[in-house]
Amino acid sequence: MSSPTAQPRTVLIVSDHTGLTAETVARALLAHFPDQPLKYIQRSFVGTVAAAQGVAREVAALASRGERPLIFTTITDASVLRELDMAPAQVFDLLGPGLTRLEGELGVPASRRVGRHHDMHDQQSYLARMDALDFALATDDGLGDRQYGLADVILVGVSRAGKTPTSLFLALQHGIRASNYPLAEDDFERESLPIPLEAHRAKLHGLTIDPRRLHAIRTQRKPASRYASLEQCEHEVRRAERLFQRAGVPVRDTTSASVEEIAAGILAQVRRG
Amino acid sequence: MSSPTAQPRTVLIVSDHTGLTAETVARALLAHFPDQPLKYIQRSFVGTVAAAQGVAREVAALASRGERPLIFTTITDASVLRELDMAPAQVFDLLGPGLTRLEGELGVPASRRVGRHHDMHDQQSYLARMDALDFALATDDGLGDRQYGLADVILVGVSRAGKTPTSLFLALQHGIRASNYPLAEDDFERESLPIPLEAHRAKLHGLTIDPRRLHAIRTQRKPASRYASLEQCEHEVRRAERLFQRAGVPVRDTTSASVEEIAAGILAQVRRG
Repeated sequence: MSSPTAQPRTVLIVSDHTGLTAETVARALLAHFPDQPLKYIQRSFVGTVAAAQGVAREVAALASRGERPLIFTTITDASVLRELDMAPAQVFDLLGPGLTRLEGELGVPASRRVGRHHDMHDQQSYLARMDALDFALATDDGLGDRQYGLADVILVGVSRAGKTPTSLFLALQHGIRASNYPLAEDDFERESLPIPLEAHRAKLHGLTIDPRRLHAIRTQRKPASRYASLEQCEHEVRRAERLFQRAGVPVRDTTSASVEEIAAGILAQVRRG
Repeated sequence: MSSPTAQPRTVLIVSDHTGLTAETVARALLAHFPDQPLKYIQRSFVGTVAAAQGVAREVAALASRGERPLIFTTITDASVLRELDMAPAQVFDLLGPGLTRLEGELGVPASRRVGRHHDMHDQQSYLARMDALDFALATDDGLGDRQYGLADVILVGVSRAGKTPTSLFLALQHGIRASNYPLAEDDFERESLPIPLEAHRAKLHGLTIDPRRLHAIRTQRKPASRYASLEQCEHEVRRAERLFQRAGVPVRDTTSASVEEIAAGILAQVRRG
């Protein structure tokens, strides 16, 4: 066992394709070592022996300065992987062991071709994601209320509560058609669901946020405006939450949730039906 | 070894958090078995023994019908994981072996707390991504040419060549501030770089596309328009490519590339400097 040092450890993320899978797993693993100083280097599209030799030379240069880098790789071609294995580093072969087990379990050999997970080989699901993105952009900020019938989910909340990033993420990552409805003064005066939303109750997801956080976000956009004032933010959030409660709209607090978390929560709910 | 069947195999993706890591790895592994019919079920936020027991009951119900499901999980809490291990399924523990090796290598114990990779624990990088997304939206479609100085990259191409999805993905996934510049007739008449782009040569990335594919995409939006006609698409793409070549702008073909691939290619180029 080596002991932790103050020197950041170099983490090389090496992939034969986009590198998204390798980076995701490497960061998920290393998030369990929060005090370890790390320096990430990404090398994508390393699909040949020659390219892997180039990476191995980089590693050798680091090692010659006394470093012991970590390599995380999703490369599955044995001859390319071998070049990394020979480099003076700790190599984490992220897919190999799983592929071997799946070969046994499924009774067929793995293709071990260059990573195809993030290409367009699943055309239908890719086009669905791009279509969902177009939809989210076209119906952002209440622009497309006549299209709510085509939406999978409709996010409802006050301005800057997180609707737009969440709907774009739902589209790009999950192919979910998400629309927005921004709550404004008129809606609060009614004290019941805004008319364009009434027919779509089952699709509604309310987003709320701590008024102080909202105040900070809006201040960055329009400093010293009434729109950004803490008083206005408190008023809007209170009225929005009351409306959600009356109408029975499920609510998520976005104050300290990432778009990934908000989206996953909404998806879990949609799937439960 | 069991032999492949026509019956789709159930794949359960079980996570104590958003499920993004587990889904990414499961799909990366299973992409190597393209002929295997699969049915995906996602169970996120499975953070307790009780929740895992619920999943185990679902698995038992499938098994009682003669199925042998595959479970892919990123859960690291030993007591929660144990419940899945006891279910009648093949369990792929995606993080456990890597964590054990890293503990040896780094000389410190893994936290093994609920997955935090997709929360906001890295506040600075999360805020950078949200800021980049605001930037991409504000400067989409050439709206913000006075802000090109603040951009990390500027995507240049004809309408519907893939600029907007790519810039949103670069922002959301990678925190890259990406602007757009849509090439139009005026720009082709000049036959040199559009004036707003001249000062930002090093940031430019051209996107091109097969005119027939462009024709199909535009036809979906504006059927039977001059804008969507094959002739117009051919003309625009030819002129755009000529302009990229003259100005020395690197070009990517988006015809059969996913946004993940286009973004990864641009990033690899940016990182090489």
